[in-house]
Amino acid sequence: MTTTINRKACVLGAGVIGAGWVSRFLLMGWDVNVYDPDPEAPRKIQEVMNNALNALPGLYDHKLPESGKLTIAESLEDAVIGSEWIVEAVPERLDFKHKIFRLLEAVADENAIIASSTSGFKPSELQQDSARPKQIIVAHPFNPVYLIPLVELVGDEDTVVNAKHVLDSLGMFPLHVRKEIDAHIGDRLLEAVWREGLWLINDGIATTKEIDDVIRYGFGLRWAQMGLFETYRIAGGEAGMAHFIGQFGPCLEWPWTKLMDVPELTDELVDKIAGQSDQQSGHHSIRELERIRDDNLVSMMRALKGRNWGAGELLNNVDKSLKQPQTQEENKKNASLLKTVERVIPINWTDYNNHMNESRYGQVFSDAATEVMAIIGADQAYVDSGKSYFTVENHIKYISECVAGEEIYVLSKVLLGEGKKLKLQHQMYNAKDELVCTDEQFLLHVDLKTRKSSMPSDEVAKKLAYLFSQHQQL
Amino acid sequence: MTTTINRKACVLGAGVIGAGWVSRFLLMGWDVNVYDPDPEAPRKIQEVMNNALNALPGLYDHKLPESGKLTIAESLEDAVIGSEWIVEAVPERLDFKHKIFRLLEAVADENAIIASSTSGFKPSELQQDSARPKQIIVAHPFNPVYLIPLVELVGDEDTVVNAKHVLDSLGMFPLHVRKEIDAHIGDRLLEAVWREGLWLINDGIATTKEIDDVIRYGFGLRWAQMGLFETYRIAGGEAGMAHFIGQFGPCLEWPWTKLMDVPELTDELVDKIAGQSDQQSGHHSIRELERIRDDNLVSMMRALKGRNWGAGELLNNVDKSLKQPQTQEENKKNASLLKTVERVIPINWTDYNNHMNESRYGQVFSDAATEVMAIIGADQAYVDSGKSYFTVENHIKYISECVAGEEIYVLSKVLLGEGKKLKLQHQMYNAKDELVCTDEQFLLHVDLKTRKSSMPSDEVAKKLAYLFSQHQQL
Repeated sequence: MTTTINRKACVLGAGVIGAGWVSRFLLMGWDVNVYDPDPEAPRKIQEVMNNALNALPGLYDHKLPESGKLTIAESLEDAVIGSEWIVEAVPERLDFKHKIFRLLEAVADENAIIASSTSGFKPSELQQDSARPKQIIVAHPFNPVYLIPLVELVGDEDTVVNAKHVLDSLGMFPLHVRKEIDAHIGDRLLEAVWREGLWLINDGIATTKEIDDVIRYGFGLRWAQMGLFETYRIAGGEAGMAHFIGQFGPCLEWPWTKLMDVPELTDELVDKIAGQSDQQSGHHSIRELERIRDDNLVSMMRALKGRNWGAGELLNNVDKSLKQPQTQEENKKNASLLKTVERVIPINWTDYNNHMNESRYGQVFSDAATEVMAIIGADQAYVDSGKSYFTVENHIKYISECVAGEEIYVLSKVLLGEGKKLKLQHQMYNAKDELVCTDEQFLLHVDLKTRKSSMPSDEVAKKLAYLFSQHQQL
Repeated sequence: MTTTINRKACVLGAGVIGAGWVSRFLLMGWDVNVYDPDPEAPRKIQEVMNNALNALPGLYDHKLPESGKLTIAESLEDAVIGSEWIVEAVPERLDFKHKIFRLLEAVADENAIIASSTSGFKPSELQQDSARPKQIIVAHPFNPVYLIPLVELVGDEDTVVNAKHVLDSLGMFPLHVRKEIDAHIGDRLLEAVWREGLWLINDGIATTKEIDDVIRYGFGLRWAQMGLFETYRIAGGEAGMAHFIGQFGPCLEWPWTKLMDVPELTDELVDKIAGQSDQQSGHHSIRELERIRDDNLVSMMRALKGRNWGAGELLNNVDKSLKQPQTQEENKKNASLLKTVERVIPINWTDYNNHMNESRYGQVFSDAATEVMAIIGADQAYVDSGKSYFTVENHIKYISECVAGEEIYVLSKVLLGEGKKLKLQHQMYNAKDELVCTDEQFLLHVDLKTRKSSMPSDEVAKKLAYLFSQHQQL
């Protein structure tokens, strides 16, 4: 096995999960071959891809790499050739999966990773009769695959290590499930709640809406950022986890017999659930619900980004890798305006009409100034050493509007750079190279301890002077 | 029973839950008497109150009412007198709770609501031997009580209706559990996951951290905004909920026997969990974890606010009630500068040092302009009719810094108001009445269909001219 990445993936099966994988690979710059005999597959992929395009780029504060190329293959063999990552996302029937694996063993690169999205089968089951069992692992994602970071990895340890590199590069959170077990970890927990939820509905205690409201106005908010145990650690207070278990543990012995029994899925119960669900959510189409869900997820994950916590910390790490390190070098080399920002407008920067709020133009220019500072050596390390530039004035002129999902970039010019003073001019453009907004920004160098103006370091002053002299000639 | 609210509450028991209630009532403007024989009670309340002060005001975009008065009572009788809402948050022992209820029946107003925070007992159990059983209900909150909206209400229907009014006014989400059941709804679902989690740890499948990561990088993100059933409705696609059950339902019959068995909480298992939890979270103190959790929750709930969904929709509704309707009237009456913004700075507006990001000053001024527009009749209805003012220029001068949690207000002046043109001057002050930032803002009236400048309606033009003439004299 090798960790070299040729960025060619193949996806077998274009259902919701398969199409989700296709979208994430493509948007992260991989070429993807898909094979699915369903004649509707191209349309289904396009629908999921539209959702992903609406959501994934807005998770990040830097532009994603160029999207890869999508090929709808005529046969499984055509799809597989040259792929280093093969997603198996076919229906959950073991005999069918075995048939696919036999075909794959004949044509796939022996170093390729065959990653099954199965939620129901263990690697040992998938690997039955395989000539190269280590090649087959479980990589179980969660819907929507283009947004939810978690992937449960189960299988051969070396293969899992290699698989982690790939999933990391896709911005996902690969979790190695060290012992194989029915349903892995996530679905066991979900199954427990599902089972209890069915009883509550069956017995007329609660409706689907009431159960959902208990979750999303209650513990669901906690679980999006800490899980079960860290939350309970806090509940235990200074006395800690053992104290909490002492308090909560005895509940386990209460006579909640229903927890241990399985409700029968009669037609009556299924109709009851479906009817309640219609009443709860039927005023939205599935497409609308998907967009609502995705916009909520992007907004919440961006909120966690601001706290650098959980899924948000993951996004920040991807942002660091997205930021092209050559930009600064190129900027320094060329005696031209600096390209200081390149990104799309995220959903949480917009109003109900999807137009970017006026204050967010200011945020883009603030980011542009941070980049100029980095170029002259006033970077994070410089700030940590107790020195920085503070903005004292912004003069922003709005020329035309921007909407969520639109690509923008900023060109910046040093208008003045001497002593404590730094004056910048920023020009924001859209993807059609139309000027949409300008800013004249005046900054002062400050000592972060005294919070008063001060002279920059000699090195920063020198770099700034050079940039200023170059920009004066423009 | 009456729905009149005298805004006097009493809280019996000052543990994490009791102190959480105290904090929410106080910050929403209620006077609170607390009784807890623990000499440490005042310190414990103060600690939770500090957390709440750090978090709750930042959920909203308008200033909260003046905080109520906290009184640490010398006796249960002193605490209860005059209270219309009595929180019972004493230890989970039924005989002890019955003793408290007997004392309450002797001294409490017979129209007061006695709301037990119990997670373990049903109203029928609490009401045993009660002279006024309808007065005693379950109002089961979730930690942290000052942030998580959900309260499960169980008990007499009339009392529950009255209780809902009170909880609504606290910005909470009261959910009527229509049939009493052990552990209500939320804790049954939590218990199911807890039980399954214990098995996973007991059997060495996963650690506390791995389980938490599965939740917070996986389905926890989904559940913070939609619950179980709405999420699965989407997974079912256009075929809907019945289709999903058809797919997922059979899993119930898989041989996951562990789900139906109870792990024994041996010392060994408790040590294992506590040890894993130390390794996962031990580098943070409980106080730190509380702050991290609260800042995450506030940021995520504010993100949902931007989508007007779930917990975020609830926050927007509270904001509407927080906004003092007399402000506009007062502003119109007085020939003085307009007070257009009054709020605290939320955590998600700040950088890692808690200083407000420069772009958020722009957001405050944007909100100030929206308020001026409302005063001259260019309100939401006017915007809906296809007309509005667009900002074309902002000239912002930063004078000093603001930090998260700080109160600010803005005074606005009409510098010019004729024809299509509107020019405003905004001055932002902190709670010490120090000027922290100014903005000169130039707006143009636009036709929202053509997106081009146009004349305002006669009525708006007239109101604007009056305001302009008054402000010219200042």
